[in-house]
Amino acid sequence: MTCAVDMTDIEYMNIALNEARKAYEEDEVPIGAIIVCKGRIIARTHNLTEALNDVTAHAEMQAITAAATAIGGKYLNDCTLYVTVEPCPMCAGAIAWSQLGRLVYGSCDEKRGYRKYAPNVLHPKTEVVQGVCAEESTELMKKFFSSKR
Amino acid sequence: MTCAVDMTDIEYMNIALNEARKAYEEDEVPIGAIIVCKGRIIARTHNLTEALNDVTAHAEMQAITAAATAIGGKYLNDCTLYVTVEPCPMCAGAIAWSQLGRLVYGSCDEKRGYRKYAPNVLHPKTEVVQGVCAEESTELMKKFFSSKR
Repeated sequence: MTCAVDMTDIEYMNIALNEARKAYEEDEVPIGAIIVCKGRIIARTHNLTEALNDVTAHAEMQAITAAATAIGGKYLNDCTLYVTVEPCPMCAGAIAWSQLGRLVYGSCDEKRGYRKYAPNVLHPKTEVVQGVCAEESTELMKKFFSSKR
Repeated sequence: MTCAVDMTDIEYMNIALNEARKAYEEDEVPIGAIIVCKGRIIARTHNLTEALNDVTAHAEMQAITAAATAIGGKYLNDCTLYVTVEPCPMCAGAIAWSQLGRLVYGSCDEKRGYRKYAPNVLHPKTEVVQGVCAEESTELMKKFFSSKR
């Protein structure tokens, strides 16, 4: 999958949001993620914990595994991960191990996000941007959880 | 794989240590893990980050995925995870999502362990035991890292 190099964070996040919407349609917690390396999308995933019966199958975890396969190396220093919701401590720990170059996320997760439980877990060189398309992400999450009540 | 129900933590940890030794022989960071449910070993794994070219392929992560498959459910409330080294934040986050009943680990990891980065990440109901066969685990880790210098 090749994309124009000059796509903006908002444009990339919209692709991650489309992944989140797929998760929603599959009755999964609606979180989507993509990983971009030098203008190319090398991973595109959404949460699959229900389908795979696996608590580790968060969008970010799958994206990290897929990206490493795509570039043939474990470290993602030259990559940006776009994820629609703030990563949990598990995913943030994986992001740290991967030495990710840049993390862009949408809405904050005050209850389960890494900033609450592990605020210093990321690699010090990872640049973090939050709040990109946060409203769309929040709305999707709210719609999902209100349908579960 | 069926084991006697009355095996002790030390006996189970020795099986995890054997997994760690396998990792050592494969030139992987020597960490092993098993998951026991009602006296049965339902997962038996070791670190495979190099072989799989995947920073998420820690022993515990694979064990959690395998155990969920074995019992046909995502939650491991009735399970004990034995791991030779203190889990990192990523693995501790996964342990939290799995609602693991009991965590038994060997040596402490003061540099990369979850207690440093995410001391409150585990599920409040997860019982934690540390220091089982810690010496053997420490020795194996030291031997591995000194061979890398």
